[in-house]
Amino acid sequence: MTLPQSYLQMISTVSAEGELTMELVEKPMPELGDDEVLIRVEATPINPSDQGVMFGWASMAKAASSGTGAHTRLTAPVSPQGMGVMKARVGQQLPVGNEGAGTVVAAGSGDYAQSLMGKVVAVMGGGMYAQYRKAPAMMCLPLKDGHTARDGASCFVNPLTALSMVETMRMEGHTALVHTAAASNLGQMLNRICAADAVELVNIVRKPEQAQLLRDMGAKHIVDSSSESFKADLVDAIHATGATLAFDATGGGELASNILAAMEAAAARTPGAYSIYGSVKHKQVYLYGGLDTSPTVLNRAYGMAWGVGGWLLPNFLAKAGGDVAMRLRARVADELKTTFASHYTDELSLEQALQADVVARYYAKTTGEKFLICPQK
Amino acid sequence: MTLPQSYLQMISTVSAEGELTMELVEKPMPELGDDEVLIRVEATPINPSDQGVMFGWASMAKAASSGTGAHTRLTAPVSPQGMGVMKARVGQQLPVGNEGAGTVVAAGSGDYAQSLMGKVVAVMGGGMYAQYRKAPAMMCLPLKDGHTARDGASCFVNPLTALSMVETMRMEGHTALVHTAAASNLGQMLNRICAADAVELVNIVRKPEQAQLLRDMGAKHIVDSSSESFKADLVDAIHATGATLAFDATGGGELASNILAAMEAAAARTPGAYSIYGSVKHKQVYLYGGLDTSPTVLNRAYGMAWGVGGWLLPNFLAKAGGDVAMRLRARVADELKTTFASHYTDELSLEQALQADVVARYYAKTTGEKFLICPQK
Repeated sequence: MTLPQSYLQMISTVSAEGELTMELVEKPMPELGDDEVLIRVEATPINPSDQGVMFGWASMAKAASSGTGAHTRLTAPVSPQGMGVMKARVGQQLPVGNEGAGTVVAAGSGDYAQSLMGKVVAVMGGGMYAQYRKAPAMMCLPLKDGHTARDGASCFVNPLTALSMVETMRMEGHTALVHTAAASNLGQMLNRICAADAVELVNIVRKPEQAQLLRDMGAKHIVDSSSESFKADLVDAIHATGATLAFDATGGGELASNILAAMEAAAARTPGAYSIYGSVKHKQVYLYGGLDTSPTVLNRAYGMAWGVGGWLLPNFLAKAGGDVAMRLRARVADELKTTFASHYTDELSLEQALQADVVARYYAKTTGEKFLICPQK
Repeated sequence: MTLPQSYLQMISTVSAEGELTMELVEKPMPELGDDEVLIRVEATPINPSDQGVMFGWASMAKAASSGTGAHTRLTAPVSPQGMGVMKARVGQQLPVGNEGAGTVVAAGSGDYAQSLMGKVVAVMGGGMYAQYRKAPAMMCLPLKDGHTARDGASCFVNPLTALSMVETMRMEGHTALVHTAAASNLGQMLNRICAADAVELVNIVRKPEQAQLLRDMGAKHIVDSSSESFKADLVDAIHATGATLAFDATGGGELASNILAAMEAAAARTPGAYSIYGSVKHKQVYLYGGLDTSPTVLNRAYGMAWGVGGWLLPNFLAKAGGDVAMRLRARVADELKTTFASHYTDELSLEQALQADVVARYYAKTTGEKFLICPQK
């Protein structure tokens, strides 16, 4: 097989003048080291964690696209506040796309690299929204026979995140979980994991159809934040499960605060003397996403034993150590087509992923939608 | 010595109708168990942690007092939002005053209780804003010879809190501290501890005269939040000290968020590739007080490795264990007149502490002011 001389790579740049640009740049085919392989990227998903790098704090409601084919560009203005947050990335061409899968089409001279030639592998290496990607052979997860790039495209971020939420719960002494944006691809995986591991899970969704989707999956505790009885329902569900740990994908607004208040109200149902400083059991909400970029507002009406903080998969894995990471990865490979199956509603070419109307759809994606980029299209 | 038949005790009550009342109630002299003592309370400080119990979320700007002597009452309206937060305490007569000191004037038949007769002891037992207080003998800390009730009145809350901040820093892997409302009695103790233990401390104050007070004490890093260069000064001080842990007494508003942003900006000064997910070292702000009852607003412009949470001395001591608590207590007794000396600007009778004009002063206390209640006045 003859490889082309160059390939297209999607990058995101914030200019000093306050404009975000996403475009395709032409890159020369890379040289391979002995222990490196070249992957022809065939399938790479758009995860919420990618959107943070792609769009940052730009005003996406004002995004526009121009050009066609390899010259398609997306631009969006950035407010002064957004520029403050993104100061450190001004002028840097950031490659985007955390994970993906494809076929190894070239390999260095090392034995392991050579053994991957022609294999379908998945990799979490960044810069995956590209036609080709160089990667260390050791970083590649060879898929089992019969599994396609499409099957393995999402086998790192969401599966490891969902598994790590349950690991975090155990490591920090909690016994049940609350999850927001719970009908997401990640949320569905988490439901399957919790069902298999007998962990009680409170699912918070934003729409009745999301509640229905989870109910159809067999989820037991589902609370709809669009319902008038949301806060009372949440207290009931938290009381029923004893959850004192939540993972929130939205990040902004009052949701984290409302979850902590519900945990406190649930704790107060257990008879005991009133304490002015609140319940003693630590209540924690981790913000692992930023679907809502507005500030997090905490009213602190839940005593003193609470915490809110950022949560990021690589930081967790670094803390948990290599053995845990290996154990989780092995489970993903074993259960790729069951627990960790991803369903895609749209397949986009690199160019399509830069068109303003398409971007608007995946930026504000609705129930069950999940977008896949197929760079060979 | 003949004891009276009854004594006065200060209580705080929130009615279902939305009114806070603080008043003195007459209580019968308690019966003593074998291992209990009766303390004639002579000195008991008004700490910020007491004010939480005294006033809760009432609108203190609208407080009014009525009556005289033992019939002095203070009332203040409570907003619907405040009622929501204080639901669990509606109708409960809460005794106030966490700590204090006085003379043991009666004792049960137990040997240890008897050994305390006539001694000056300090105790952290709650309900100390009273003429008398029954306490388990084991809970009493006998002061060294020559130390008065006034010397020992504040020997638990602030000394143990300041020491526990440094313990928390060590337990959680940080190497320097940031402290807000840093000119407070507690803040001054923390400066003395950090100087003795060679721990770098960034002091955040709100006024130039508070900065001067700390400068006169020999504090090295002082940042004034009323200064135009506050944010830049804070980054400089955090960069100089490497602090990744802060204790914030104010709780509300944007201060915690600004501290985290400054920690992130300080981390970004260390050369290295830009990471979209921010610096990897965990940055933590503990809210240990609520001088500002408005919501805590977090703009999350500091990556993913951060946390904000409540921090409460009893919860910390429970987690740290008995040995740590004993070690800290022994240090307080040894250094009561030096490191842990408290200076009081006002001495109030129980009645005075309920007068609206006096309450207004200690509710919004300024630099260096610290109020002591002397229930025998």
